[in-house]
Amino acid sequence: MQSTVTLSIDAMGGDNAPGIVMEGVADFLSGRPGARALLHGDEALLKPLLAANAVLSARAEIRHTDIKITSDMKPSQALRRGKGSSMWNAVQAVQEGAADASVSAGNTGALMAISMLVLRKMDGVHRPAMTALWPTLKGRTVVLDVGANVEADAEQLVSFAIMGEAFARATLGIERPSVALLNIGSEEMKGHEEVREAHELLRNSPLKMDYRGFVEGDDISAGAVDVVVTDGFTGNVALKAGEGVARMLATRMREAFTESLASKAGAALAMNGLKRLKSMMDPSNVNGGVLVGLGGVSVKSHGSADARGFARACELAADLALSNFRGEIAANLARVGAGDLAAE
Amino acid sequence: MQSTVTLSIDAMGGDNAPGIVMEGVADFLSGRPGARALLHGDEALLKPLLAANAVLSARAEIRHTDIKITSDMKPSQALRRGKGSSMWNAVQAVQEGAADASVSAGNTGALMAISMLVLRKMDGVHRPAMTALWPTLKGRTVVLDVGANVEADAEQLVSFAIMGEAFARATLGIERPSVALLNIGSEEMKGHEEVREAHELLRNSPLKMDYRGFVEGDDISAGAVDVVVTDGFTGNVALKAGEGVARMLATRMREAFTESLASKAGAALAMNGLKRLKSMMDPSNVNGGVLVGLGGVSVKSHGSADARGFARACELAADLALSNFRGEIAANLARVGAGDLAAE
Repeated sequence: MQSTVTLSIDAMGGDNAPGIVMEGVADFLSGRPGARALLHGDEALLKPLLAANAVLSARAEIRHTDIKITSDMKPSQALRRGKGSSMWNAVQAVQEGAADASVSAGNTGALMAISMLVLRKMDGVHRPAMTALWPTLKGRTVVLDVGANVEADAEQLVSFAIMGEAFARATLGIERPSVALLNIGSEEMKGHEEVREAHELLRNSPLKMDYRGFVEGDDISAGAVDVVVTDGFTGNVALKAGEGVARMLATRMREAFTESLASKAGAALAMNGLKRLKSMMDPSNVNGGVLVGLGGVSVKSHGSADARGFARACELAADLALSNFRGEIAANLARVGAGDLAAE
Repeated sequence: MQSTVTLSIDAMGGDNAPGIVMEGVADFLSGRPGARALLHGDEALLKPLLAANAVLSARAEIRHTDIKITSDMKPSQALRRGKGSSMWNAVQAVQEGAADASVSAGNTGALMAISMLVLRKMDGVHRPAMTALWPTLKGRTVVLDVGANVEADAEQLVSFAIMGEAFARATLGIERPSVALLNIGSEEMKGHEEVREAHELLRNSPLKMDYRGFVEGDDISAGAVDVVVTDGFTGNVALKAGEGVARMLATRMREAFTESLASKAGAALAMNGLKRLKSMMDPSNVNGGVLVGLGGVSVKSHGSADARGFARACELAADLALSNFRGEIAANLARVGAGDLAAE
């Protein structure tokens, strides 16, 4: 893959900024020889970290600001007072063409609001959607919307399907991702009117999409399809409910392995398998929510991500920047917007 | 607890009926010396199983029918053709007063439809709701609705809160269960209008409920509250998404422990802890969905439950039958229906 990409980094966002962020960027740059980074933040803090690292010294530069978006700021406050902050400047650099994509581990609501304002919506997109990469038995599945919108009508669900398909192609490297609508229950009670209508639209659309119909909640982790489409309320609840179950089981597993000498010895013997399992349950391995449908790429990293996690978010941002996913979305939106769908 | 309870059992419902069902009932009866059971199903199959078991011989009797609801029958077909079936007769016995509660591991949609028709809705209940007992870090949490209704307006959510609270008191034995509404996101974007309106209604209600406001998806497994209230679409997706994650992690754990001799030995040493973890992830330990808001108790057991799982569903049915949960629901619905809520 081509690697001449420049990322614009909010070096001050997240629980462990700027230390972890700088480490993550260094990790990312080491893996992509041609890549560069702009680091937005407080020069006094960033300079020593940059100087201490050869890769950063060679391929990253600092863009100073001492304004910061705090984690308790509301989106509306961030819009009013956030101009010139490290987060704002990181996104702005993408809009101005100085960078190809931005990454921030800061305040989610603020990042969404600033990204929307600065990067604007793509032509033809009424509602951008937040994606999640959900770990499954077969790999990863793109789930969207996981919280950018509270509700979605049938046409918005169709546009989410289009955006999710292009996103899956760019990030998972699947040429023709399979797509399904999230639904519940039996044949006779097939969910909301919006979902049933979106199903008809997708089934009869002129898109070359591998549309598979409905899936249920447990099909996500089973990896039944590559893209699961839903409204932002349902998607957010599903994602967090799943995270909650994973966290509970991780806690129980720790207890199971620390309760006695025998179990500790057992855990030591089983270490390899356990490490893989732990890595599987680690959010930093699936890090990177993206608000798709904007005029540029703005990736959100978990606020508590470690350096590896932040590096993954950078890789995702670079993959998206180097792909044609926005071009594909525009083409497919035009295809369904050209009256073919409305005629159904 | 008083144990003079009679359960009405659909002996022919579920993947492993009638064998597993009979074993489960025997298990239940052994734990409740005063309890009795009516076994609805094919006498030719049930008689030898009954005769072979001392507890069943002493405290269960067969009510013959050779009609059966199949697992592929739609609810509407079950209503048209299901009269006289083992499932129908099991529910009917409750309605007629011959038994205190019914249990079936058969076709979910059919059981819901038949229970609604035969037991009817309680006075004041517009929409019965399906409950789930969700395992958490602190014990179990009641989640409802998990699929009886696709949507719910604010007043229905309030009635779900009332029914869930009474259900939690009866099944979890908590005197004053804490209750919350499932929602997403930040302060500024607090979900659907329905959820926000229900929040206002509950906050200002004359109920003596321990209402805690909003929780998010990951708060369920954390055990943040005893009762989580949501619409049937969201609840069903959340429950199944959580089950999917648990199943995926169980698969990965098996892989982790069978990949090498060392890890197998490790697993053997850690066996006690692992067994507890396995039991925690086992659906039969949280078995028993209940359609609350009906004129009688009808419990659904997982179709694939083992004997212990079916016994748990029976215990749940007995607890509900011996509690005053329907009386409490009626009183609280009257309290909010008396104009206090509408006046807000």
